Amino acid sequence: MKIITPNAQILIANTRETILKHIEVIGRTCYKSEDKITKESSSDFVRMLIRRGHESVLEHEKMTVRFTCDRGVSHELVRHRIASFSQESTRYCNYTKGKFGSEITVVDPGANFAKPGSQGIWLKAMQNAEKAYRDLIENGESPQIARSVLPNSLKTEIVVSANFREWREIFRQRTAKAAHPQMRQLMIPIFKVMKDYIPELFFDIEVKE
Amino acid sequence: MKIITPNAQILIANTRETILKHIEVIGRTCYKSEDKITKESSSDFVRMLIRRGHESVLEHEKMTVRFTCDRGVSHELVRHRIASFSQESTRYCNYTKGKFGSEITVVDPGANFAKPGSQGIWLKAMQNAEKAYRDLIENGESPQIARSVLPNSLKTEIVVSANFREWREIFRQRTAKAAHPQMRQLMIPIFKVMKDYIPELFFDIEVKE
Amino acid sequence: MKIITPNAQILIANTRETILKHIEVIGRTCYKSEDKITKESSSDFVRMLIRRGHESVLEHEKMTVRFTCDRGVSHELVRHRIASFSQESTRYCNYTKGKFGSEITVVDPGANFAKPGSQGIWLKAMQNAEKAYRDLIENGESPQIARSVLPNSLKTEIVVSANFREWREIFRQRTAKAAHPQMRQLMIPIFKVMKDYIPELFFDIEVKE
Amino acid sequence: MKIITPNAQILIANTRETILKHIEVIGRTCYKSEDKITKESSSDFVRMLIRRGHESVLEHEKMTVRFTCDRGVSHELVRHRIASFSQESTRYCNYTKGKFGSEITVVDPGANFAKPGSQGIWLKAMQNAEKAYRDLIENGESPQIARSVLPNSLKTEIVVSANFREWREIFRQRTAKAAHPQMRQLMIPIFKVMKDYIPELFFDIEVKE
Repeated sequence: MKIITPNAQILIANTRETILKHIEVIGRTCYKSEDKITKESSSDFVRMLIRRGHESVLEHEKMTVRFTCDRGVSHELVRHRIASFSQESTRYCNYTKGKFGSEITVVDPGANFAKPGSQGIWLKAMQNAEKAYRDLIENGESPQIARSVLPNSLKTEIVVSANFREWREIFRQRTAKAAHPQMRQLMIPIFKVMKDYIPELFFDIEVKE
Repeated sequence: MKIITPNAQILIANTRETILKHIEVIGRTCYKSEDKITKESSSDFVRMLIRRGHESVLEHEKMTVRFTCDRGVSHELVRHRIASFSQESTRYCNYTKGKFGSEITVVDPGANFAKPGSQGIWLKAMQNAEKAYRDLIENGESPQIARSVLPNSLKTEIVVSANFREWREIFRQRTAKAAHPQMRQLMIPIFKVMKDYIPELFFDIEVKE
Repeated sequence: MKIITPNAQILIANTRETILKHIEVIGRTCYKSEDKITKESSSDFVRMLIRRGHESVLEHEKMTVRFTCDRGVSHELVRHRIASFSQESTRYCNYTKGKFGSEITVVDPGANFAKPGSQGIWLKAMQNAEKAYRDLIENGESPQIARSVLPNSLKTEIVVSANFREWREIFRQRTAKAAHPQMRQLMIPIFKVMKDYIPELFFDIEVKE
Repeated sequence: MKIITPNAQILIANTRETILKHIEVIGRTCYKSEDKITKESSSDFVRMLIRRGHESVLEHEKMTVRFTCDRGVSHELVRHRIASFSQESTRYCNYTKGKFGSEITVVDPGANFAKPGSQGIWLKAMQNAEKAYRDLIENGESPQIARSVLPNSLKTEIVVSANFREWREIFRQRTAKAAHPQMRQLMIPIFKVMKDYIPELFFDIEVKE
C-alpha cells in the first residue's frame, strides 16, 4: 500500500500577458472598441469586465488542473457541468499488477482527523480493503467487479479543464468553509497561485482559512 | 449491515399522449405547420423528428429516475452534463445514527461475481468497513471524515432528471455491452419499460443482452 | 403585413403543490430526511434550499414558455445554455405562401420609441423589407436566401424549456434595467405571474420597473 | 454602406505537437498507461481514442474562431451549447458614428443567389434599411431601438471558443449539405485547414461539396 497526500498541478497554455490580451481583444468585439487597445490596456479591461458582471468573455481562455485526491472528492468535482474530465478508471486499472507494484494507493486523511487513534483505525481499514481486493482478483474476478471493496480513500487522478469563468465559480465554492476539508486542501493552494499569477481574473474572490 | 440489490424508479409528469402532443406542438413551431395537427398525428411526427435527426425538439419533455446503486455507478452517472442530480450525501448522513439503524447499507454485486468464494470475501470486507466507520465516529470523527473507510459498494440514492434527448443518449451508452454490469442491471429494465410505454421516443435503440 | 405586440405563454406540467412536493422529496434524498415530510413541509423546505444556496434541487422541475418576439430578442434568449429551444425557422418558412397570407409579421417596437416620427420611419422600412423579400422569392430565390432582407423586427416564435434554477437566472438577468426593453416587456409579466403562483421559487427576486 | 464577404480566422494556443501530446498524456490518466508514451505515440493514441468513441479526452484542448457573417448565421452558431461566444452587439454599437464611418456593413449573399436580378433587389433593400436606421438615430432613438430596421444581412463578428470534441460536432453539422449556404462558406474552409493541420482530430469526417 502506498499512502500519499492530496495534490494538484496546473497546466496553462498561454502566458499571463497572452491570456489578458486575448480576453481584451475578444471582449472588445462586443463593443467594436478595438481602437482603444494599448500595450497596457488589457489589465484594466479585464477587471472592468468582472466588475460589470460581463464574465462570459472570460470563457475564451482556459486552465487544466491534474488533481490527485480520493474518490469522494473526485465525485464532487465532476458535478461541475461546464468542465471536461478524464479520470483514472477503477474499471480498467488492475491494482494487483506490474506497474501498480501490486499495491493500491490511498490518500491520507490524516490532516483532517480530529482525534488520536483515528489514523490507526483508518490504516487498518485500508489494509483490509487492499487484501480483499487482491483476494477477489486472485479468485478470478475482473477489476471492475473487485472494485466493490475499494475504499473511499482510494487515490484517483482526475484532469479537469475549464474556462476561467468556471474556475472562478469552482474556486468560490470549493475554497469556502462549507467545502470538504480535502477539497479545500486541494483548491486553496492553486487558487492562491493563480490569484498571484493573474490577479485580474481573481481579485474579487477572497478565501477564509 | 443491510444488503440490497440495485434498482430504479421512474417518475414522469405527463402521460404518453401529452408528451407526444407537446413535442409535436412545439416541433411544429419550427415549420409553422400547426395546421397539420390531428388527433393521431403526434406519433408519426415524433418518429419523423428522430429519423431526420431533429432531436432537439425531444428536449422539451423530461423524465426523472431515482437510482439506488453503489458509489462507483453513481460516479459514472453524474458525468452526463445535460442532466440534474440530487444524491445522498456521505458528508451529511451519519450511518451510525437513529434512522439508519446504526447500519450501513451496501449494494450486493453478487449477480456479477464470476467465481464461488467471491461473495464471502466481499461480505467480510463490508463488515470490516462498517466496523471501521463506526469506530471512527465513536472516536469522535465527523461523518465527512469517517467516510474515508466506506467501500465502493456503499449504497447511494441518486435522483436524475433529464430530457428525453439526453435519456436516449444515456440509454444508448449505459445499456451497451461496454457498460459496467451494475449499470446495465439498472438501465436495461427501465429502458424496456420506457420503450414499451412510449415507443415513439426509443424505437431506434436496441439493447443486446 | 401583420403587426403584433410581443407576448409570452406559460406551460407547466405540474401543479404548484406537486412541484413543491417533488422538490422536497428529491431534496431530502441528499440528507435522507424523508421522515420529516408532512403535508405542509414542502413550502418551508423549498425556501430553505434557496436561502442556503442549495439551488441544484430546483433543477428537477421545469417550465416551458412560448415567446413571440423579434429576432433580436430571440438571439439573446438562445444564449442561455441550460435550456432547450425550438424556433420558427426563416430557412424553412416561406412567408409569401398560403398559411402566412403572403405577409410577413413584425413585432411593433412602438412602446419603446422615444420620439414622434419614429413609428412612421419604422413602418416604411418594414414595408420596404416585405416588398424586397417578396421580390426575391418571385425572382426564384429560396426562403433561406431571401431572408437576407428580412428585418430585425421580424416576428419569431420560440419555445423555451428550462428548469426552475435556470428560470431564476433568466428572470434575474432579463428583467433587470440593463436588459433590452422588449426583453423586459416579455419577462416581467411572466415573472410576476410565476412569483404569484409559486412564491417559494422566486421570493428573493425583485423587479425594478 | 460597406459590403463584405463572410470569413473566419482561427486562433489556437498550442502547436499540433503540443495538442496531441496533451491529449495523450491526459487520456492515459484513465488507464494509467503513461509508461507507453514515446516520442511518436501521440498520433496513434489520438486516432485510437476517436475510433473507440472515447472522445471526451479531446475536450481538454480547444480552438477559437472569429467569424464575420450575417445575423442569421450567428443566430444558428450560438445554439451550440458546449461553446463560448462573444458577439458584436447591436444594442451597444451605434453604426452612424465615428469609427463605423456612419455606415452599416452587410454580408454579400451574392454567391448564393440563384437568379440574375436578385443582387439588385438585395442591394436596394440594404440601402433602404441603412437609411431607415440613420433616420431613427437622427430622430433621437437609441441604437438598441433603431436596430429594429436592420436587415438579416447585417454583418456581425462573433468569436467562438470550443473544445475539439465540440468542433468535431460543429464541423459535422455545419459543413453538411443540409446546412445554410453561408454557414458552409464559413465552415468548409476552416475545416479543411484544420483537417490538414491536425488530421488526427478530424480524419473520420468527410465534407461533400
